[in-house]
Amino acid sequence: MASMLLSRQLTCCLQQNSRLLVFGHRYISQAAAKIDVDFDYDGPLMKTEVPGPRSRVSSQSIVTWFVNAEAVHFFCNYEESRGNYLVDVDGNRMLDLYSQISSIPIGYSHPSLIKLLQQPQNLSTFINRPALGILPPENFAEKLKESLLSVAPKGLSQVMTMSCGSCSNENAFKAIFMWYRNKERGHNNVTKEELESCMINQPPGCPDYAMLSFMGGFHGRTLGCLATTHSKAIHKLDIPSLDWPIAPFPRLKYPLEDFVKENQQEEARCLEEVEDLIVKYRKKKKIVAGIIVEPIQSEGGDNHASDDFFRKLRDIARKHGCAFLVDEVQTGGGCTGKFWAHEHWGLDDPADVVTFSKKMMTGGFFHKEEFRPNAPYRIFNTWLGDPAKNLMLAEVIKVIKTEDLLNNATHAGKALLTGLLDLQARYPHLISRVRGRGTFCSFDTPNDATRNKLITIARNKGVVLGGCGDRSIRFRPTLIFKDHHAHLFLNIFSDILANFK
Amino acid sequence: MASMLLSRQLTCCLQQNSRLLVFGHRYISQAAAKIDVDFDYDGPLMKTEVPGPRSRVSSQSIVTWFVNAEAVHFFCNYEESRGNYLVDVDGNRMLDLYSQISSIPIGYSHPSLIKLLQQPQNLSTFINRPALGILPPENFAEKLKESLLSVAPKGLSQVMTMSCGSCSNENAFKAIFMWYRNKERGHNNVTKEELESCMINQPPGCPDYAMLSFMGGFHGRTLGCLATTHSKAIHKLDIPSLDWPIAPFPRLKYPLEDFVKENQQEEARCLEEVEDLIVKYRKKKKIVAGIIVEPIQSEGGDNHASDDFFRKLRDIARKHGCAFLVDEVQTGGGCTGKFWAHEHWGLDDPADVVTFSKKMMTGGFFHKEEFRPNAPYRIFNTWLGDPAKNLMLAEVIKVIKTEDLLNNATHAGKALLTGLLDLQARYPHLISRVRGRGTFCSFDTPNDATRNKLITIARNKGVVLGGCGDRSIRFRPTLIFKDHHAHLFLNIFSDILANFK
Repeated sequence: MASMLLSRQLTCCLQQNSRLLVFGHRYISQAAAKIDVDFDYDGPLMKTEVPGPRSRVSSQSIVTWFVNAEAVHFFCNYEESRGNYLVDVDGNRMLDLYSQISSIPIGYSHPSLIKLLQQPQNLSTFINRPALGILPPENFAEKLKESLLSVAPKGLSQVMTMSCGSCSNENAFKAIFMWYRNKERGHNNVTKEELESCMINQPPGCPDYAMLSFMGGFHGRTLGCLATTHSKAIHKLDIPSLDWPIAPFPRLKYPLEDFVKENQQEEARCLEEVEDLIVKYRKKKKIVAGIIVEPIQSEGGDNHASDDFFRKLRDIARKHGCAFLVDEVQTGGGCTGKFWAHEHWGLDDPADVVTFSKKMMTGGFFHKEEFRPNAPYRIFNTWLGDPAKNLMLAEVIKVIKTEDLLNNATHAGKALLTGLLDLQARYPHLISRVRGRGTFCSFDTPNDATRNKLITIARNKGVVLGGCGDRSIRFRPTLIFKDHHAHLFLNIFSDILANFK
Repeated sequence: MASMLLSRQLTCCLQQNSRLLVFGHRYISQAAAKIDVDFDYDGPLMKTEVPGPRSRVSSQSIVTWFVNAEAVHFFCNYEESRGNYLVDVDGNRMLDLYSQISSIPIGYSHPSLIKLLQQPQNLSTFINRPALGILPPENFAEKLKESLLSVAPKGLSQVMTMSCGSCSNENAFKAIFMWYRNKERGHNNVTKEELESCMINQPPGCPDYAMLSFMGGFHGRTLGCLATTHSKAIHKLDIPSLDWPIAPFPRLKYPLEDFVKENQQEEARCLEEVEDLIVKYRKKKKIVAGIIVEPIQSEGGDNHASDDFFRKLRDIARKHGCAFLVDEVQTGGGCTGKFWAHEHWGLDDPADVVTFSKKMMTGGFFHKEEFRPNAPYRIFNTWLGDPAKNLMLAEVIKVIKTEDLLNNATHAGKALLTGLLDLQARYPHLISRVRGRGTFCSFDTPNDATRNKLITIARNKGVVLGGCGDRSIRFRPTLIFKDHHAHLFLNIFSDILANFK
């Protein structure tokens, strides 16, 4: 934690001694500071532009058969990647503030995970993948108690693992629909008509239930999830969907302290619309069984709302008998300074269901006991996640606790946010709407072209950034991102902004 | 391969020497034969009933928080499980003919996979999971060429990996919908109206397209997949669905040679219904963009159809401009004696899309080039599978080729099927409709209760079997299941049937 006390001046001073300005390497605007994560590198080191010649050759080798080849940024040398630094196949070492779309919890090649892999008793877990729902391994309970159950959101006693974020939300929807129908039929037995009609996709067996979602939200790309995703047209175009209600999400004005009243009104407007939609859909015999929301709309542009907004949304859900599902796939795992972002809200009554994936290494969801299906095999698939991921997650959570990484996210996030606000003050024509919680920060640029140009320039200066929404840049560093990494980035980015044309 | 020449008599003779009849262990009706898989055990070894006391204690420890706890059969000791044998926490060693719902390709704890895990250069792949679609590892092309691309079905040059079977089918549907819409709009630009309407789940951006599926089929449990799944009510009850057409799947009469004409008529009836449904749905403005079918309906009860049926179905798809999607999630990977079950059909024009998962260790799908989306990020998610699984799959495919495991599946399958036909002749009141391709065999029992009782008795005699449909038992052994394992099973099961009350 000593590094957090380092003043910006001292950081700059230390950079004089950096070995980044080695002769023959490309110049980096500002270099690294103290290393307090012992396996971390001490700063970026750029040898070519990115993608470099080896990445370009590799890209050519996949373009004929890999569907998504055009999306590839560059090829990576993960063996050499360490801590907060991603190394590419051309030997460029970059400070990674995007961390594989927010999915690397404690940095690359963490010594604890290497050690885990080297222990002979763990081999079997990686090569003998079971059908977890019927034939779990001996240490199943132990590993889940060390991992997921040890960080379960308050009031949510039940857990189920899944392989990815989309499957987590899909199955959470199903648990909600089953819960709702069970309530509706008064916990009576299922009728013959229900059993028969469900086989041909018809009501009453397949009831006309809906999940209410928000414009700008992202909850995955499988058909059920996609019906609640409304962030970009490219995700949804040409895919048949369901007529499920979509509410507006608050569009807050920044700086927040200057627009208190306007923002309150905006949130009230959105909440009113939520209630109207529930009623309107009910009138046309389509029942809103649940509401799904992200604590911060991530893919959609890092859109925040106040804690009060979410508390009121939770109340609306309860009032109308809808389940309240918080999608923590991107926000969960500690980056906001609490393990779950929704813990900031101070809810009296917990969320009903919370989904996760990404940094949690396994997908899955927590829920209240009343959402437990009334029979086994109703929420089921062959793998139901992967014990190898549970094993690694147990280790990751141990590291998070031992190294106090939630507080670290708060502190490092503060350093990052303060710096971004400073840059916003100096470059208001390039940076606006600076916002964030923990290290989960972002800002807007004037437009898509400027945003993408800034990301490209930063990458060539040794910093990997990610975009979101139509013109935002989002920060999704690992949990071992420290104050000095924030200062390192801010120095590099300050130079980029100063020279931006 | 020498073991395949062993006559049944010799097998029985060898069993005299088995060390299974050791004093103090529970009696096993018949014991093991030759071991030609050097890491395999030589036979079952039962110490308690299953689930035994330790399994029951473990079950109690998860029931309070694990949603699916009631579905757990028993807890396993995967460290001690080897080859075709699953060992449970009470030390019972069972011949596993279900192999984690058909998902263990080359047996438990295969030495090649252990070696792979022990190689230091592979460590990084297991702990640094990338966002594969944007930042692939250096050896991405190499590993996919050694694995998936080396077994790509003829004519399907494109591949995409996914994390599980459901995500594979969901994304295959999406690729089909995009392909269809692109044809329909004449490869013109997307309109503003499409871009706007898709954001609110409405046509024309979200067109009213459908996948045609078959009654009895199983294609996964996420909402899109579930709209094509029609095997059991428990999968579908209470989940909203889509009005997509469902055709009857042939219900063949056995033995096939006695019902040639009836079965031809049955298949013709089903094919006619497929065409009628396509036309009928088109009339109500719901376009069938694709047809999905399993080569053998697995979860639905191991329902087979003739190669001719599938060739004609493929022709119907082409005639009506629908994509032809073959779901090889359970049938793929070699167990039918060909790498892909649909290779038995002798199609002139290949399938358009083929999905896989389970034994392939990673999910994903192959497709023709014309199904490649016209822009990156249209088929995308954070992980897009897992390079650790690709690495293991490359090793698995090497073993399959080196050890000639496709031919082994044909031979061992023949031994199994011949033995089952023999048992059917002797116990027609218990066994009927014996059927299979390679080791992918099954038979019917008189009813659900008898089926479940047989499975329980077999388990306590040291054989793990799986059920499917409403009264079938299915065989899903690993690819290293040999003739002598078939004989071992047949002897045990013969005794069970002889004593069944």
